[in-house]
Amino acid sequence: MPQKTLLLVFHPDLEHSRGNARLLEAVKTVPELSYRDMYLEYDGTYIDGATEQIFLEEYDLIVVQHPMYWFSAPAMLAEWMERSLTRGFAWPPGDGDALAGKGWRSVVTTAAGAADFTDAPGSASVETLLKPYEMSATFCGMRWLPPFVLHDVRDPAEGGLSDEALDTAATQYRALLEGEATID
Amino acid sequence: MPQKTLLLVFHPDLEHSRGNARLLEAVKTVPELSYRDMYLEYDGTYIDGATEQIFLEEYDLIVVQHPMYWFSAPAMLAEWMERSLTRGFAWPPGDGDALAGKGWRSVVTTAAGAADFTDAPGSASVETLLKPYEMSATFCGMRWLPPFVLHDVRDPAEGGLSDEALDTAATQYRALLEGEATID
Repeated sequence: MPQKTLLLVFHPDLEHSRGNARLLEAVKTVPELSYRDMYLEYDGTYIDGATEQIFLEEYDLIVVQHPMYWFSAPAMLAEWMERSLTRGFAWPPGDGDALAGKGWRSVVTTAAGAADFTDAPGSASVETLLKPYEMSATFCGMRWLPPFVLHDVRDPAEGGLSDEALDTAATQYRALLEGEATID
Repeated sequence: MPQKTLLLVFHPDLEHSRGNARLLEAVKTVPELSYRDMYLEYDGTYIDGATEQIFLEEYDLIVVQHPMYWFSAPAMLAEWMERSLTRGFAWPPGDGDALAGKGWRSVVTTAAGAADFTDAPGSASVETLLKPYEMSATFCGMRWLPPFVLHDVRDPAEGGLSDEALDTAATQYRALLEGEATID
């Protein structure tokens, strides 16, 4: 049976995105999956933690999809974590175990290529840059699942991946969320 | 001659902070230093990138002080980066070199102890968790300076460092910003 999956997309301008829009399109009809365009939901308002917690409790797998901004995520993801993963809900005291055992999968697009993250002095891989999310998920008793990372989503005219390669990646993403593929 | 230093403090509730308030108190009278309580400046409004860029151009050293939230920073720091470090100002095309050669120093407090960041499987040091800032500063042509990290700022009744130890750290922080001490 497919897992109940909550897909949260954090992109300030999803309509004009290349990678994130294509990825979302490919998975929005996955059985048992609900998706939310968070910058549309919270346009000009703060994240409502109580609402977010109701969503989180309903699902087994939380997929957090976003472009990489400044080697991290758009600001709203940090705000979502601060307001949703509160003490007593996501961590002790009190019950503090609402998320225990659920899965967290980060899905990240980057405009740059993979080599740009590892070749320069002082740089780090995307997996390393995602450590704050891995440690946060673990802190809440969640299972950190290997991230799905798609590089080179900039325009093909600027050297980005082709439309065909993007389609292939989108198909792989769908297979992953349908539970018919794994990473690593 | 002391460097012109801009200290940006990102703490949602500085008045009730233990570590960040004490650190700020110790350095606010450093010569040539200006400080701004960013959550107070932007209370309920978005960061104004144009204003921030005027500040950034005026100073040689940018000190970014914040508590660690979710193994990263309070959300407003990410928003500040998105709105201030814009294309054509902080990176090409166009001039894109407004920050070239300036220093970036992160100053981070954590409630937990140093061992909590390195002993658990999958965890990472604070230095690794700061990679997104290091890579962002480098991307803008800035000099990444060793971060000043203060652990255990939770209440002494909960095992945090003593008031005396906090005072000592605050004195070290002041010496660092006065250019009379270095890290590493």
